Amino acid sequence: MTSDLLARRARLMGPNVPTFYDDPVEIVRGEGVWLWDAEGRRYLDCYNNVAHLGHCHPKVVEAIAAQAATLNTHTRYLHRGILDYIERLTGKFGHDLSQAIMVCTGSEANDVALRMAQAVTGKTGLIATDNTYHGNTTAVAHLSTRRPPIGGYPGHVRRVPAPDSLAPLGGSLAAQAQAFAAGVARAIEELEAAGHGFAGLMLCPIFANEGTPGVGPGFMAPTVEVVRRAGGLILCDEVQPGFGRVGAAWWGHELIGFAPDVVTLGKPMANGHPVGAVVTRPDVMAAFREAFGYFNTFGGNPVSCAAALATLEVIEDEGLVENAREVGAYALEMMRGLHHPLIADTRGFGLFFGIEFAREGAPQSDFCGRVVEAAKARGILLGRVGRAQHILKMRPPMPFSRENAEMLVETLDAILREMPA
Amino acid sequence: MTSDLLARRARLMGPNVPTFYDDPVEIVRGEGVWLWDAEGRRYLDCYNNVAHLGHCHPKVVEAIAAQAATLNTHTRYLHRGILDYIERLTGKFGHDLSQAIMVCTGSEANDVALRMAQAVTGKTGLIATDNTYHGNTTAVAHLSTRRPPIGGYPGHVRRVPAPDSLAPLGGSLAAQAQAFAAGVARAIEELEAAGHGFAGLMLCPIFANEGTPGVGPGFMAPTVEVVRRAGGLILCDEVQPGFGRVGAAWWGHELIGFAPDVVTLGKPMANGHPVGAVVTRPDVMAAFREAFGYFNTFGGNPVSCAAALATLEVIEDEGLVENAREVGAYALEMMRGLHHPLIADTRGFGLFFGIEFAREGAPQSDFCGRVVEAAKARGILLGRVGRAQHILKMRPPMPFSRENAEMLVETLDAILREMPA
Repeated sequence: MTSDLLARRARLMGPNVPTFYDDPVEIVRGEGVWLWDAEGRRYLDCYNNVAHLGHCHPKVVEAIAAQAATLNTHTRYLHRGILDYIERLTGKFGHDLSQAIMVCTGSEANDVALRMAQAVTGKTGLIATDNTYHGNTTAVAHLSTRRPPIGGYPGHVRRVPAPDSLAPLGGSLAAQAQAFAAGVARAIEELEAAGHGFAGLMLCPIFANEGTPGVGPGFMAPTVEVVRRAGGLILCDEVQPGFGRVGAAWWGHELIGFAPDVVTLGKPMANGHPVGAVVTRPDVMAAFREAFGYFNTFGGNPVSCAAALATLEVIEDEGLVENAREVGAYALEMMRGLHHPLIADTRGFGLFFGIEFAREGAPQSDFCGRVVEAAKARGILLGRVGRAQHILKMRPPMPFSRENAEMLVETLDAILREMPA
Repeated sequence: MTSDLLARRARLMGPNVPTFYDDPVEIVRGEGVWLWDAEGRRYLDCYNNVAHLGHCHPKVVEAIAAQAATLNTHTRYLHRGILDYIERLTGKFGHDLSQAIMVCTGSEANDVALRMAQAVTGKTGLIATDNTYHGNTTAVAHLSTRRPPIGGYPGHVRRVPAPDSLAPLGGSLAAQAQAFAAGVARAIEELEAAGHGFAGLMLCPIFANEGTPGVGPGFMAPTVEVVRRAGGLILCDEVQPGFGRVGAAWWGHELIGFAPDVVTLGKPMANGHPVGAVVTRPDVMAAFREAFGYFNTFGGNPVSCAAALATLEVIEDEGLVENAREVGAYALEMMRGLHHPLIADTRGFGLFFGIEFAREGAPQSDFCGRVVEAAKARGILLGRVGRAQHILKMRPPMPFSRENAEMLVETLDAILREMPA
């Protein structure tokens, strides 16, 4: 069954198409925090942040169906949907990020954000962290570190060491804040020396792809000062932490306590409907609109805006940010009670958790992989992340309950008890 | 009313956001070939190719609503939807284009296609035509000619003169085929001399953004030979001509009679749902998958595939390609009966028409703009295109009827009678 599907995938989609698990799952139905496979097995989804409100939330489904039956066209005609949505969305930002461009994916959003920094500064140089992923377009893939593009990485992109609990930049995470800023300052000097100049620094405010190393409030202060002094922009990729995921705030940058010039949004924004956005200040938007013509055929269409607005309303109406904070804290406390000699660190922000496996500072990737497979066998879907893929990544839909958290942690406990170090 | 909306757009979306018309229309509802504004005025839509099956086609709306209520997740789990769709889609190609990557927009598709050419050749050099648009990501915007990016156009991108009825490359369109190929050959030499090497040529097979200058079967033969001899790939952007728009064939490249290595799809593919795709041969796919890691979170999700499959089925079930051929021919014949001293040429492929306005070889942009505004005042939505925006662009939804065509041409006739040369 599954092997037939894998053979069809190879024939129709080609080789090396990413799948989860040694024996991938055929998922056929989703509801809330649950997914079902083709044999009717139920899985607790502790990984998929796209289904932010839970899979197939009826309010979003209704909004999509109603608007798709009424009108779905581009923004060169006027429509209230995009205006109502951007008004609500920008109202969620505490500083002067009052304008937005609607796009279809987080990748498209990041691709625009990079050009905003270039438009404002007139320079091309871009900096990102050294173990990250900001999307799949050519330009944003240059910021990622998975493999160099044909022709090599372009000279105007530099990567700086990210904070990391295992390979510390300089001792404690607090000390790493200075080291991180120093790395950014060096990269700026290099870009200027090479004639590219410095346009902007893009990062995820909680360093999600680096394994959410647990940076706290104030971490970014020295870096923000370095970037501002050099005249560059801070481009904050909120695709993972945004929309209340981190519990204590609507946005990761709020939690860490800094004010980016540009914020990009994607995955959870419309509960699975392809929607992304770039939120920024009027001066940045004006510079971008002046320097680059930009139009996105599907971006901001009435169906996308209806799906995004319904998502925003459900987050508020169902108190999902509060839920992320409360259930997140409850789950984290339970996770910290897990005992295993290879657990090096357990951490989380809201409903985003990481359990790091290491032995005397050496990451335990295989062990982490086996935990993920064992969890799947017990009906729990998880992922992994980090430089060595040695950190369990848990990022369930936002209506995750205390009971769901108990099921997750009890299952992890049972798995770890059976797995010798 | 409209001015309030424009003020809100400026406040929330920034300056220079593209709109249609001097006094833009607030569109609130669509059905078939019709759109309605907020005052209840009805417009015959002769422009929007995204609503390929007509606005809000109930079969697509139902497919989206049903699948969105069942499951919407990424392709790292297995799902039959994407396989069933790619099987049907690739079945529409006459040669060995048997594999596909699903993405969310035509821009994303073109961004991938460029990297496919680079992956196969190991070179970076890209060629496009000199008055075109292939999308809005940084990489594909480099192929467009609207304005140079910050830092200037990159050296690995070259633009070649496109065929043009007003500024001919070398006399007749048949003669322009040789001149076009010669331009491509020169660009390849330049790329090789500059050390970039040549990866691929991207073009729209009917040169839609150049104003569909009327190239016919055989036009591409000399160019294909030049590209093949240099070891490059032909990347065919079917975002506008694809899915039967051209009437005589499902794809523009079939109509013109050449076999691209990569085909990209977008706008009409799912009747407005954000879906795009890259279709190619297994060897090209394997090279791309090997050279570039690629994953698209929303791309190929079950809802996108359900929307795309429903669209494909409606095209077949309602005989829309045949309709495009028959009504297209009927409409073109009527359009050729229009008389005005400034009409320099009237042409079309299926349901894609252009009427070119010129006076002794000089494009008449203002006149063309006034025709578009006058048509809107009479309840007909049109656009314009071409180097000087002097060509009326008509590209209605595919169920466009003979009666719709008569209404369009009669309205144009009445407008032209009232507009002195």
